[in-house]
Amino acid sequence: MGSVLGANQYGKAEVHMVTVTRDGARHTLRDLLVGIALSGDLTDVHLTGDNAHVVATDTQKNTVYAFAKEAPVGAIEDFGLRLGRHFVSSFEPITRARVHIVEAGWDRLGDHSFRQAGAESRVATVVCDTAGEWVVSGIQDLVVLNSTDSEFEGFIRDRYTTLAETGDRVLATAVAARWRHRSAEGDWDASFAAARGLLLDAFAGTYSRSLQETLHAMADAMLTGRPELAEVRMSLPNRHHYVVDLSPFGLENDNEVFHADDRPYGLIEACVLADDAPPAGPAWDPYPLVS
Amino acid sequence: MGSVLGANQYGKAEVHMVTVTRDGARHTLRDLLVGIALSGDLTDVHLTGDNAHVVATDTQKNTVYAFAKEAPVGAIEDFGLRLGRHFVSSFEPITRARVHIVEAGWDRLGDHSFRQAGAESRVATVVCDTAGEWVVSGIQDLVVLNSTDSEFEGFIRDRYTTLAETGDRVLATAVAARWRHRSAEGDWDASFAAARGLLLDAFAGTYSRSLQETLHAMADAMLTGRPELAEVRMSLPNRHHYVVDLSPFGLENDNEVFHADDRPYGLIEACVLADDAPPAGPAWDPYPLVS
Amino acid sequence: MGSVLGANQYGKAEVHMVTVTRDGARHTLRDLLVGIALSGDLTDVHLTGDNAHVVATDTQKNTVYAFAKEAPVGAIEDFGLRLGRHFVSSFEPITRARVHIVEAGWDRLGDHSFRQAGAESRVATVVCDTAGEWVVSGIQDLVVLNSTDSEFEGFIRDRYTTLAETGDRVLATAVAARWRHRSAEGDWDASFAAARGLLLDAFAGTYSRSLQETLHAMADAMLTGRPELAEVRMSLPNRHHYVVDLSPFGLENDNEVFHADDRPYGLIEACVLADDAPPAGPAWDPYPLVS
Amino acid sequence: MGSVLGANQYGKAEVHMVTVTRDGARHTLRDLLVGIALSGDLTDVHLTGDNAHVVATDTQKNTVYAFAKEAPVGAIEDFGLRLGRHFVSSFEPITRARVHIVEAGWDRLGDHSFRQAGAESRVATVVCDTAGEWVVSGIQDLVVLNSTDSEFEGFIRDRYTTLAETGDRVLATAVAARWRHRSAEGDWDASFAAARGLLLDAFAGTYSRSLQETLHAMADAMLTGRPELAEVRMSLPNRHHYVVDLSPFGLENDNEVFHADDRPYGLIEACVLADDAPPAGPAWDPYPLVS
Repeated sequence: MGSVLGANQYGKAEVHMVTVTRDGARHTLRDLLVGIALSGDLTDVHLTGDNAHVVATDTQKNTVYAFAKEAPVGAIEDFGLRLGRHFVSSFEPITRARVHIVEAGWDRLGDHSFRQAGAESRVATVVCDTAGEWVVSGIQDLVVLNSTDSEFEGFIRDRYTTLAETGDRVLATAVAARWRHRSAEGDWDASFAAARGLLLDAFAGTYSRSLQETLHAMADAMLTGRPELAEVRMSLPNRHHYVVDLSPFGLENDNEVFHADDRPYGLIEACVLADDAPPAGPAWDPYPLVS
Repeated sequence: MGSVLGANQYGKAEVHMVTVTRDGARHTLRDLLVGIALSGDLTDVHLTGDNAHVVATDTQKNTVYAFAKEAPVGAIEDFGLRLGRHFVSSFEPITRARVHIVEAGWDRLGDHSFRQAGAESRVATVVCDTAGEWVVSGIQDLVVLNSTDSEFEGFIRDRYTTLAETGDRVLATAVAARWRHRSAEGDWDASFAAARGLLLDAFAGTYSRSLQETLHAMADAMLTGRPELAEVRMSLPNRHHYVVDLSPFGLENDNEVFHADDRPYGLIEACVLADDAPPAGPAWDPYPLVS
Repeated sequence: MGSVLGANQYGKAEVHMVTVTRDGARHTLRDLLVGIALSGDLTDVHLTGDNAHVVATDTQKNTVYAFAKEAPVGAIEDFGLRLGRHFVSSFEPITRARVHIVEAGWDRLGDHSFRQAGAESRVATVVCDTAGEWVVSGIQDLVVLNSTDSEFEGFIRDRYTTLAETGDRVLATAVAARWRHRSAEGDWDASFAAARGLLLDAFAGTYSRSLQETLHAMADAMLTGRPELAEVRMSLPNRHHYVVDLSPFGLENDNEVFHADDRPYGLIEACVLADDAPPAGPAWDPYPLVS
Repeated sequence: MGSVLGANQYGKAEVHMVTVTRDGARHTLRDLLVGIALSGDLTDVHLTGDNAHVVATDTQKNTVYAFAKEAPVGAIEDFGLRLGRHFVSSFEPITRARVHIVEAGWDRLGDHSFRQAGAESRVATVVCDTAGEWVVSGIQDLVVLNSTDSEFEGFIRDRYTTLAETGDRVLATAVAARWRHRSAEGDWDASFAAARGLLLDAFAGTYSRSLQETLHAMADAMLTGRPELAEVRMSLPNRHHYVVDLSPFGLENDNEVFHADDRPYGLIEACVLADDAPPAGPAWDPYPLVS
């Protein structure tokens, strides 16, 4: 029996680049974490140690920095496309480039002073290969909570079921969402702002009978409201807030005092697609491969 | 040779309590992480295993939840004082209570919908004992950056020095600040908002010849502007942003493209006191003891 | 335009269960982190909020605990299969169960005393559905380093390349590896121990011209040495150790003093398959869906 | 009202240095995280921005690397003393140096191959100033568990107490311990190995009526067994393992199946001193100042 090399990719991960643009005294700050994964004709590097087809990950890092100087960074989707196209067009053995960018937000304190906005970040994953280009935008670590208008009832009861039904609970999650665009051309900033707004409005405005229903409402609102989107994927941890039993102390607790638990947590995940969504191609291929 | 028991304390740490207050349809959310440390006549529990003087940490946790129901939580300084006074006054062997509270901020999305504001959090440490009460307020994980008006020149050069002087650099830090109040009575929310504003204004407005100078400017502005404060302490990691050398690619880099490095980092720390500051007593005793 | 529900799954994540088995005075400890993801006929819960097909994630958690009492836990692969088969066979709407288990190791200090062994952990992912069963074993956070017998030369040089070739470097990584079994029956503990040993021997024994070559050598050794394996997947961060330039201090540095950098890092990933590997089915479907 | 500068210190933190020593084909690996904090005549740098007394933190970092080449690293206590003495003796304004070192362990896989040993690490903090030298050794992230011989009974019951007494529970903690030496000269490696052994033996061998009693037993054994030690300090999080209630499923749970909870946790802390311990001086001054 022998072994064969299957899918593989390599690149530089977590290049943390901050750029400052000066418009007179008023500066603009960008804060990007860039990861690159290249694939192609890379059998020899695995099997014989011949690196003739290898663009060093150090070179990839240098390219990120140089590209930020050679032209304005722009939306992270555009910056990803510039990088991806470069690697595929410049190196014959490289036939696919995946570029993953996480952008941290900063609020302005003054002309040249900034405060980091929070844990929430905007993400984009771009794939360029000889067969096409794919753009996925998204958001992560967006922590939201509804203090009412959430229930959980009517679920299956078996011998291991002890959970009581509840008509009023806290619903909290840390949104990890990705949305695939139909095209590799777009007004990415406007699209992102609108998609994020639809997501938040649906979270706040949906009466929830389960976190699945809330997930679907958010994804559906995004797809319905933004025709440039083909698919939305979300992973929503259900951050359980347990009503503390205050009865031993002679106190009622009418959904006022909660223990915010860390683990375990529910994890609710789904893909929702436009009914005419084009094929996803390699857009969702895993990065990293093992997680 | 024998051993003797020295300073000791024990308690429940990281009680994560979320409370919801209803004013009709409009809800208010609070998100607190509470830690308690009690000390007193606790020699027997260490030496003989006699727990007769021990308020169980589980009871301490219950007390946090019950107190949040029995009266409005209020400012974290006040909630800490309520808890601290309770433990010292209710249990004869307990002669000192330290209560440490970290509050996470949430922004409003709707009447009952909220988004977690960010990594920055407000903190308070309260100490109650038979000799007095001390209140320390503070802030942590407040990440700020100035993209200019920072230099670093004129430092010592020895045989191990390679750093070039610079007349223009990025200055970034994650502020961990604590400020000790003169009194255990105050309008804590107003004081906190004003102190934080003074800190941020001084960060943004100070031309910096070192992070030490910026630290001092922030602390001095707080002490000068807020007479209720006796002392300010800060730990400021210098989050180095290195100008990337783009010259191998034929590009200039006029403080435009930076590598934001993780480690190592400078760590700048100081106490600044009002010139008539009262003694600190146990206000700054370590919690945890070993870190 | 409308939307359609695509792939979805839900379950309880990170159930942290510790079990103690008593063989007289001598105890055995197990430390498992269990995650469950169920899928099936779950359209209604997403679209109409009807939970009639939902096995509550709280019930899933209870089942983990109860199963650990009802029979010995055994190898994590077997425990995963027991759980997975239960969910698929007990609930008509549930047609697939994915069970992911991470086991932390503990070293024995005494009959009933233990010390946690380290960051490295053993993992298993089991998928049970109406079409079959799949078992993936693995390891994560296994940090290894070779202080020589690693070079990196002959790679592509373009206008953004500054990296020097090196004939002798430190090679360090944190192994994340998964290996798919041909069958859902096996002597899991023996297989794991042997596979891990082959991986480590190949890491230590391979002269490396790139981390890709080392990855392939490890995977090939596992597939060649263990016929029960069909496929190996690895993600290997290249933890760069940079030779510190001591020449400004009049000192040579012959690969003796290194700066261990955090970010960015290379990320080398590949699948290697037995040349007669059966199809993977849903074995590698992502969990979580968005990461 | 004016402000005055109080205690202050600054330095480079978390210099991650790995060294390789070659004894023929057999290599030795060391993995150190070094932090330095200097204090002295530093008022001007805070108040006027004059850096004439500042040893740049970048220079401190360079010094760590150069010192590792100029002479063998040795025990981390000795390496800390070399560094501390250098800063105090070389720079007139610098009157005190604190050096904090964390060493990660690596197990040998082969002549030049290593596996990181685990989360547990050895630490040392050294303070050198004009008045003397102090050495503190320690250990952190040493996670240990006793599956029996632990009870918790006889504690205070008040209106907020719901915890049941228990005659048999799991006792688990992550040991953070520091021990102060009487002298700045010693056989540090032998002392560390012996002190760690005494700590572990006392943990495993003590019947525990509270975590306080276990803490005291460990510290007392170290002080009694190692006359070179003057004081031991420990912070012990009580990692609660809750017996899962299986009675709803018709199952008994005789301390067999536990939920390992994350938060909140008990936190038990104490200093234990030799009855003739010399004064601690600045040995325990906080680093970082605010945490």
